Amino acid sequence: MPTLSQTAHAIATRRTRASEVLQACIARIEATEPRLNAFTGTRFEAARAQAAQIDARLSRGEAVGPLAGVPFAVKNLFDIAGEVTLAGSKVNRANPPAPADAVLVQRLQAAGAVLVGALNMDEYAYGFTTENSHEGPTHNPHRPGHSAGGSSGGCGAAVGGGQVPLALGSDTNGSIRVPASFCGVWGLKPTFGRLSRRGSFPFVASIDHLGPFADDAAGLALAYDALQGPDPLDPGCFATRVQPTHRALEQGVQGLRIGVLGGYFEAHANAPAREAVAQAAAALGARETVLWPFAAEARAAAFITSASEGGALHLQRLRERMGDFEPLSVDRFIAGALQPAAWYVRAQRFRRVYRDQVNALFRDWDLLIAPATPVPAPALGSEWIEVNGQRLPCRPSIGLLTQPVSYAGCPVVAAPMWPSGTDGLPLGVQLIAAPWREDLALRAGRVLEQAGAARVKEALP
Amino acid sequence: MPTLSQTAHAIATRRTRASEVLQACIARIEATEPRLNAFTGTRFEAARAQAAQIDARLSRGEAVGPLAGVPFAVKNLFDIAGEVTLAGSKVNRANPPAPADAVLVQRLQAAGAVLVGALNMDEYAYGFTTENSHEGPTHNPHRPGHSAGGSSGGCGAAVGGGQVPLALGSDTNGSIRVPASFCGVWGLKPTFGRLSRRGSFPFVASIDHLGPFADDAAGLALAYDALQGPDPLDPGCFATRVQPTHRALEQGVQGLRIGVLGGYFEAHANAPAREAVAQAAAALGARETVLWPFAAEARAAAFITSASEGGALHLQRLRERMGDFEPLSVDRFIAGALQPAAWYVRAQRFRRVYRDQVNALFRDWDLLIAPATPVPAPALGSEWIEVNGQRLPCRPSIGLLTQPVSYAGCPVVAAPMWPSGTDGLPLGVQLIAAPWREDLALRAGRVLEQAGAARVKEALP
Repeated sequence: MPTLSQTAHAIATRRTRASEVLQACIARIEATEPRLNAFTGTRFEAARAQAAQIDARLSRGEAVGPLAGVPFAVKNLFDIAGEVTLAGSKVNRANPPAPADAVLVQRLQAAGAVLVGALNMDEYAYGFTTENSHEGPTHNPHRPGHSAGGSSGGCGAAVGGGQVPLALGSDTNGSIRVPASFCGVWGLKPTFGRLSRRGSFPFVASIDHLGPFADDAAGLALAYDALQGPDPLDPGCFATRVQPTHRALEQGVQGLRIGVLGGYFEAHANAPAREAVAQAAAALGARETVLWPFAAEARAAAFITSASEGGALHLQRLRERMGDFEPLSVDRFIAGALQPAAWYVRAQRFRRVYRDQVNALFRDWDLLIAPATPVPAPALGSEWIEVNGQRLPCRPSIGLLTQPVSYAGCPVVAAPMWPSGTDGLPLGVQLIAAPWREDLALRAGRVLEQAGAARVKEALP
Repeated sequence: MPTLSQTAHAIATRRTRASEVLQACIARIEATEPRLNAFTGTRFEAARAQAAQIDARLSRGEAVGPLAGVPFAVKNLFDIAGEVTLAGSKVNRANPPAPADAVLVQRLQAAGAVLVGALNMDEYAYGFTTENSHEGPTHNPHRPGHSAGGSSGGCGAAVGGGQVPLALGSDTNGSIRVPASFCGVWGLKPTFGRLSRRGSFPFVASIDHLGPFADDAAGLALAYDALQGPDPLDPGCFATRVQPTHRALEQGVQGLRIGVLGGYFEAHANAPAREAVAQAAAALGARETVLWPFAAEARAAAFITSASEGGALHLQRLRERMGDFEPLSVDRFIAGALQPAAWYVRAQRFRRVYRDQVNALFRDWDLLIAPATPVPAPALGSEWIEVNGQRLPCRPSIGLLTQPVSYAGCPVVAAPMWPSGTDGLPLGVQLIAAPWREDLALRAGRVLEQAGAARVKEALP
């Protein structure tokens, strides 16, 4: 199956047509959806019209965008004009339809990508497994009955299952990197504040990131470039310009100072996770071990911040419709709303120091490698995982290795790796760069891909 | 008695000597302190040595600073090298002495001012009356048995009582403006983030301001200019340069768009407070009534923010030494630490919108006038005040009119007015400018002073 980059290139060079690509995509969705349960809504008719339009423009020799004819789908917390933005919830079903597409949806469409539908997620993005009681769980494309990760599990499954080459998700504590790891696909959590969040349903305003999933590293950069740009109407978007990364991909990593995160990131990773890191380190020429400051404290502060801001966000809905919330996360929302303010204040105070400490690390290093998850995808319904002999509660512990990194706001590419000892399941690594240096993480991803160390494998038929 | 400006001028021109000024100041402190209880510590010997040094330099014809020989005192939350920084508390008495002077103390001393001692305050700055159970209450210089205001009550009493022409205080919800109003002196609460807070004991990191009290408007500007300047070591100081205000004072207010705050600020002010505003408005040529956005909501959010951040700050001390806290405020600290995080998060979200709304107001107005307090100084021990027929709890309600303004971060000059119906007590007005426009508020203060509308009156002998 052609990847995102190959598809975009084939359409642009008229070796295939957008309509043919879309038809294959729809056929694949229809064939696999009963098993994956990745989609919560499709819009094939609108997609067909858009693909036909692109084909018409190409046949007239008109210019099209860099993603012309590439099918994509979005986590259902992105606004799609005319659709109700569910954010994984039952409560939101009563909301009016969104008046316009989310900014990032508009940008992908402006680049020619073709929106085919909305994807499943943990309710209100509060989870790492996409066990959604309203829509049913999304299944891992490489092992039915296992989790696709979350909260953007629909994205991971749709891209990993070959349904679409491109998806948009969100990541607060790991919600792009976890499903990318479990489903064996590429994911990018950009720098905090880099991409517009306008037209998306929030979770934790001070940590929420939006970003793309793709089935090849070059395609990830292509999509990211289309998503970039300032948005004066989003007070949380700090970008002032586009910094193209796709054209810089072939610069490789020669001369970059690349380290491997030890300490906390080793102690909380099983053997396959450590092997995935070792493979990536070998391919990138990284030898030294680096200690990330205050990782455990940052995870605790990220939990407090998420629960407090998430609880505050949903307080009124909790008061009125608690019984309609997801049973797997409602207790955490309530607890979050009731947490003492002193904890939240202290977490924020810690965070300022923490960010300075993390930023200081990047004076000495250009890139840092860590596992994306401590384990490969657990079976749906798992209550426990074992990490280095320690029994940990499954659902919150999946984010052990992603939470500290997003709390600092650093950009991360999740690269799909296939270590041994996972019974054939993937397990990704995080390629972590200094804030605003997505380009370095993407270049490293491309090197891993070219070396054959990271890749998206064909899923079950 | 000569004012700050007059004293500075007389010393600089060698019509008097710093040592003589200091001696008169010490005599006045010794005479009035039994009645006022403004000081918690004095350092007359060190002050005498410093004054002698200034006299020596002047006699040698050497240059001295703009405040050379001006005696001053500081609220006891400012670090004084070698002294324990009490911040009004009993708990802090066990702390080691401060290793260095606070930045603002250093700056006044660098300008030649002579530090004579530390001043009483509400414990940990959480109060509006300076009823301090450890040190005893500070008394109003114009009426013993009445409050000097708080939390910088020692500052108000010391300047209003003629003990010192200059003092440094802090203002989170009104703690400079309230004692300035009750004691009939000038006070400046600068823009949030404008003056360094390094070396002062905090209360509410996101609202704390430091600023000067003085016995004339020109002296207030002189002191403020000496206090200004960047401090790269204080992450909460956003100033990049000094913007001198003293030399701009004589520009007057011709051409400035000056309004009077109505609505909330009228409804929560008794007749004398409204009269004080009318007098100031007449002297400044202000005719139009202006509505301040979300004043009541801002006060609620300021309460939540203060209690949460203050509670978080003192959590450990509350756990260990609750019985040694001030009985009048300990309950509020405990409640603050236990407030739900959701309230705090919502207050912060509101605050961003609020600041934008307040800033928008200053597109149309250069200065806004409001009362500083709803009533003149109540008797010590008062549990209730009456505001327009409404019975309100005394201690929290004194800040009704100051809290909304500081929560937006705007600079305010508190000008001493003497309306009728107060039985001879003063009652100040707030001259409110856009952030970073202290110069406008100070110019308006100077106009009020020149017109005889605002002035510091001789206190009881």
